[in-house]
Amino acid sequence: MTTIELLGLDGDDTLWHSESLFAVTNERIADLLSHHVDAATLESRLLDTERRNLKLFGYGAKAFTLSTIETAIEITNGAVTTAEIQAIIDLGKALLAHPVELLDGVDDAIAQLGDKRLVLITKGDLFHQEAKVAGSGLGDHFESVEIVSEKDEAAYRRVLHSLGVAPERFLMVGNSLRSDVAPAVAIGGHGVHVPYPHVWELDSEPDDALPDDRWWQLDSLRGLPGLLEGLEA
Amino acid sequence: MTTIELLGLDGDDTLWHSESLFAVTNERIADLLSHHVDAATLESRLLDTERRNLKLFGYGAKAFTLSTIETAIEITNGAVTTAEIQAIIDLGKALLAHPVELLDGVDDAIAQLGDKRLVLITKGDLFHQEAKVAGSGLGDHFESVEIVSEKDEAAYRRVLHSLGVAPERFLMVGNSLRSDVAPAVAIGGHGVHVPYPHVWELDSEPDDALPDDRWWQLDSLRGLPGLLEGLEA
Repeated sequence: MTTIELLGLDGDDTLWHSESLFAVTNERIADLLSHHVDAATLESRLLDTERRNLKLFGYGAKAFTLSTIETAIEITNGAVTTAEIQAIIDLGKALLAHPVELLDGVDDAIAQLGDKRLVLITKGDLFHQEAKVAGSGLGDHFESVEIVSEKDEAAYRRVLHSLGVAPERFLMVGNSLRSDVAPAVAIGGHGVHVPYPHVWELDSEPDDALPDDRWWQLDSLRGLPGLLEGLEA
Repeated sequence: MTTIELLGLDGDDTLWHSESLFAVTNERIADLLSHHVDAATLESRLLDTERRNLKLFGYGAKAFTLSTIETAIEITNGAVTTAEIQAIIDLGKALLAHPVELLDGVDDAIAQLGDKRLVLITKGDLFHQEAKVAGSGLGDHFESVEIVSEKDEAAYRRVLHSLGVAPERFLMVGNSLRSDVAPAVAIGGHGVHVPYPHVWELDSEPDDALPDDRWWQLDSLRGLPGLLEGLEA
C-alpha cells in the first residue's frame, strides 16, 4: 500500500487547454506568412529559433512571440512587413488574453480529491500563469501555486522540501513525460501521465528511459480519484 | 525595541544594477531610430505602450522588447525596417544575457546580516530573475527566493504566511517606495528605502501617502546592519 499525501498537478494541457491554442496561433501565422514561406518550413525554422532562444527567453507566450518575429525576419530575409510583425504581436497578445478553458472532467476530478493536499506546479511565464490560475477558478483548491522556470529534479525537490513532504508521499500528474512524470519518479515519487492531443516538440521525451514502476497513464483526469483509491487500498 | 526576524530584499536596483542597463538600452534604441523620431517622443510613446501592455505582458526584458517593437512600428507608421526590429530584439537579448553586477557594498552588507532570516522578493520575468539570482552568487544567503507578478500587499501577506512570520517582525528593503516600502508598511511591517539613481516611471510613486513611521531611507545597503542594530537596541 502506498500513501500519497501531496498531489502535484501541472497546469497547461493538464488542467486547461494551452498547446491547442498555440497550434491555432501557429496556423494563423502560417497563413499570414504563406506568401513568403510554406507552413512546414516555417514550423521547423521556428522550432530551431525557440530551441536557440530557450536559455535566454524561457517558456511562454512572450518568448514564443519574440521567437516568431525573429524567425519571420530571418526566413524572409527581412521582407516580412511591419504590418505582418504587428499581426504576430497581436496573435501573441491574443494568446495571453485568451480565457482559460478547463479540460473535460477536471472540475469533477479536483472536487473528488478534496482530502488530499494539492499543489499546482507549472512552468512558463509567471505573469501569464498567475492570470490563468485566477481565471481557472481552481485556485482555492491548491494550498500553493509553484511556478518554476524549469521542471527538473531540483525544482521538485525544492517544492517538496518547502512543503515538508517526503518524495515517496508525492504524486505528480501532468501531460509531459519529460517535465511532469520523469523527474518526479526520479526523485523517488510517483507520476501519472495524462497525454494531451498536442505536444510541443521541445517538451516531449525525457532524456533517460523511465523506470517500469511508480508511474501510470490515464486518458483523462477523471480516472485520477479511482487510481489513487486503488493505490492506497 | 523592535525585533526583526525576517528581512526581505528586492533584487533589481537594490542588490544588482538593472534600470541603468535599461537606460543604456533605451539610448541605443533612440540612436537606432533617430532618423525616424526624436528621443523624447520615443521615450514618452514607449511608456504609453508599456502602460497599456502591463496587464498582459507583466514586467521584465521580454515585455520591454515587445513593447519597444510595437512602439517603433506605431511611431514610424510602419516605416521602421526589419533590420531595425531585429536590432531591437538583439538589444533585448543583450539585456537578458548581461552579467549580474552587484551594487556597491551589497556583498559586505549581506555578509553582516548572517543572523537574520533573509528572503529575496522580486518581481519581473521568472526565468530572468532566477538567472540573476544564480549569477549574483548571493543565492545561498537566502532561505527562499520569491518571484511575484506584482509586489502588492497581498503578495507580501502570502510570503509572510508561507514563511510563518508576523508582519511586525518583517522589514522590506528596496529601491521602490511603491513596490517595496509602501505595501510592507501597509500590512504592519517595516520598510527601508534605498534609492537608485534611475527609476522606471511606472514603478515610482505609491498611490497613497506613506505613514510617518516604520520606514527609513538609506543611501546604500551598507547602512542596513547599523540601522537594524539601532532598531533592536
